[in-house]
Amino acid sequence: MSQKITERLAPIFYPKSIALVGISNTAINVGYMFLQSLLDSGFPKIYPVNPRGGEMMGLKVYPSIKEIPEEVDLAILTVPREAVPEIARDCAASRTKAMVLYPAGFSEMGPEGREFEEEIVRIAHTGGTRVIGPNCVGPYNPSARLIPQFILPKESGSVGVISHSGFLFYYLLMSVADTGLLPSKGVSCGSDSDLTCVDFLEYLGHDPETKVIIAYLEGIRDGNRLLQVAREISPRKPIIVLKGGHTDAGIKASASHTGTLAVSTAVWRTLCSQTGIISVDSFEQMMDALLALSHLSSPKGRRVGIITTPGGLAVTSTDACSQFGLEIPQLTPETRKQLSSVVEHLGTSVNNPVDLGLIGALAPERYVKEAIRIVVKDPNVDMIIAAFTGPPGDDDDRDKRVADILLNEISAGGKPTVICGATPQGWPRGELRFLAESNVPVYPEPRRAAYALAKLTEYSEFQSAL
Amino acid sequence: MSQKITERLAPIFYPKSIALVGISNTAINVGYMFLQSLLDSGFPKIYPVNPRGGEMMGLKVYPSIKEIPEEVDLAILTVPREAVPEIARDCAASRTKAMVLYPAGFSEMGPEGREFEEEIVRIAHTGGTRVIGPNCVGPYNPSARLIPQFILPKESGSVGVISHSGFLFYYLLMSVADTGLLPSKGVSCGSDSDLTCVDFLEYLGHDPETKVIIAYLEGIRDGNRLLQVAREISPRKPIIVLKGGHTDAGIKASASHTGTLAVSTAVWRTLCSQTGIISVDSFEQMMDALLALSHLSSPKGRRVGIITTPGGLAVTSTDACSQFGLEIPQLTPETRKQLSSVVEHLGTSVNNPVDLGLIGALAPERYVKEAIRIVVKDPNVDMIIAAFTGPPGDDDDRDKRVADILLNEISAGGKPTVICGATPQGWPRGELRFLAESNVPVYPEPRRAAYALAKLTEYSEFQSAL
Repeated sequence: MSQKITERLAPIFYPKSIALVGISNTAINVGYMFLQSLLDSGFPKIYPVNPRGGEMMGLKVYPSIKEIPEEVDLAILTVPREAVPEIARDCAASRTKAMVLYPAGFSEMGPEGREFEEEIVRIAHTGGTRVIGPNCVGPYNPSARLIPQFILPKESGSVGVISHSGFLFYYLLMSVADTGLLPSKGVSCGSDSDLTCVDFLEYLGHDPETKVIIAYLEGIRDGNRLLQVAREISPRKPIIVLKGGHTDAGIKASASHTGTLAVSTAVWRTLCSQTGIISVDSFEQMMDALLALSHLSSPKGRRVGIITTPGGLAVTSTDACSQFGLEIPQLTPETRKQLSSVVEHLGTSVNNPVDLGLIGALAPERYVKEAIRIVVKDPNVDMIIAAFTGPPGDDDDRDKRVADILLNEISAGGKPTVICGATPQGWPRGELRFLAESNVPVYPEPRRAAYALAKLTEYSEFQSAL
Repeated sequence: MSQKITERLAPIFYPKSIALVGISNTAINVGYMFLQSLLDSGFPKIYPVNPRGGEMMGLKVYPSIKEIPEEVDLAILTVPREAVPEIARDCAASRTKAMVLYPAGFSEMGPEGREFEEEIVRIAHTGGTRVIGPNCVGPYNPSARLIPQFILPKESGSVGVISHSGFLFYYLLMSVADTGLLPSKGVSCGSDSDLTCVDFLEYLGHDPETKVIIAYLEGIRDGNRLLQVAREISPRKPIIVLKGGHTDAGIKASASHTGTLAVSTAVWRTLCSQTGIISVDSFEQMMDALLALSHLSSPKGRRVGIITTPGGLAVTSTDACSQFGLEIPQLTPETRKQLSSVVEHLGTSVNNPVDLGLIGALAPERYVKEAIRIVVKDPNVDMIIAAFTGPPGDDDDRDKRVADILLNEISAGGKPTVICGATPQGWPRGELRFLAESNVPVYPEPRRAAYALAKLTEYSEFQSAL
């Protein structure tokens, strides 16, 4: 194992050839869906395999993987579980580099299933074939045109994705795209019979395309190795994990899903604090934290400057920051003096939170801009929430211009800044949309903005403690 | 005060005439925006008031409220604060029933501002004029064509809305509409100088159109009366409150916003437990709870039956329910037997959570339907989460048909049922959209579904404890 992880797993993430074993074009066949999608994304070398032979979508169908005229990098098995041992033998015999086991019904079914699964891994290893799964959809890598489902993003980005659940894997990949980011690579790894989530974490940790890693994990087979690998990666790349099965009821549910050993909440918390893993409780929290950790630099401390257009946003933003352990510092007299010269006196506050009043909502390009310019320089402030309410405009040119002005100020400020737009779903302020498109994290309400900054701070404090 | 609250506040929510005092059509004038919107919504009798007189949008402009030829129900003052005492005198002299004070700069500015505010209320009361505000936009009631901003919903619904913040008031009204519900009436009441949030709570409590009340509250002037009024209303109508200013930092921010006395977290929690007020921590949580409390009956207990299409949704739904104090009961042997005859064996579970496997995602009209039919009859189950993953269809007719089949089963079941669709924003499953349109609460992920059921349960337990 002295070979680098990126080289070892290259046949999985950059396969030169893929065999689709168990494919048929009768009824709803998962192999057939893989084939359509791989062809659609332009994957160059696909070998359909089915004992009946023949032809499929213009490709020759091989009766067995052994009859394919070259060594195959990746075999995706969409056969019934009973057929797996024989195909594993074929893969091993023809020195297939890795195989993805799509079918379920292994270790999650109890001791008998676990033995069956172990037997398959043993067979595969006789030919050096590594196993991904079972109960998974395997790797995804748009850079290698390896796109197993045509609804998934086709462009490559910076977010590595790992999931024990196949369906949540697709959900995560698409949710990343919903945030405006894109996945770099990903893998659905099922019940970790051979290659585990930790191997893939290590791979993504060393993958140059991947800047942040998100993972939906259930049981962990080797906690010590996770500790070691995560600790090695975390200082360089944030790892955000939603851990499924950490309540008693959830642990029971997880056992029947992936069949791996679950980890109690207490153990999980300790592991996170020792490794810098950023633990989240929901998919929404995962995406909110991802946005902040992808786009923002590390804050120097936990002190937030809050700038709001009128109303309860100043109050609710302050509450939310406090609840998540962030601080709302006093601004320096110099800052307050400068703010006084900008904002109207009545109904506004030049303390922190800075309430710009109605005028802030009517002319953010002047008042929010000036407030950011002034507050960001305050030595007591480590990061900024700028929160908007107010009716939307209907003038895209104006909204784009406003967004550009704010963006310039945020960039020049150099401190992590997020936008919170308490604007109804049906009537978003255009400038917020343009800011989001320019990689400024925009959250739909104070609590989510504060949560994301708290997670950013958690990561930054882990880094500084090293 | 023996007169009923609905009669006492009728001039505010069903005014026969409105005077817009301080209106001008020069530059951005708030009064002018009120005028445009009231005309647009068809409000019948509007009197613009401006010392300059003349005409505006076809209406005669009166130099003073005293010169309007009839008694006015509601005067909306959009004048500078300094001008308020004199106009209050005019309102009192001409026996205007109520006046809305739009300007800020009163009690939130400290003792001098508070005295000024009290003086205005004294003046108004000499003529029996009640005061709403200052620092507010006043009432909204689509049934009376009283729509102060043209972006607000024009149809009437069942959700009463109260807000200490004017901008969050609009945000809440529009967010209600985003959920598919509609506001019945609402009021932005500012700093509660005369009529307070508690008066409006009492009004909405007795308003036959209003079935659920949501409120964004900051300080409470009279905690004892809130206790008494909320306790009287809660058994009949859920009251959902986001309390701004409950952390130390938030309390400080709130003082400079509305100038009212803030309430500590501990006091607030006690008040909620004694009154049945459902306290939420964010606008998103408010809307999630609102959906459940608007559409679902009371569960008999806190035991949730979870039905999912494949993957980690079963696990994350179970975790989320446990975290919010809900229970995941064992299903009866009879239920499990019936489920076994419906679901495939491999990769699925007939325990709770019920994991239907891939087939559940491919044919929910059969498998999810059957699972709901069976699980809802289980005596151990009080309510249901049905969670979907899987790629979306692109066939609206089919999606509508599937939704109708599920809807029938949910209605026939008679137990509170919510849908959780872990489907990406960009690719929602059509059946979920149709279910949401048919008043089934649909949440985008397990944690939010579980939270809403927990709030529903909290309310139902308050009711049964009476």
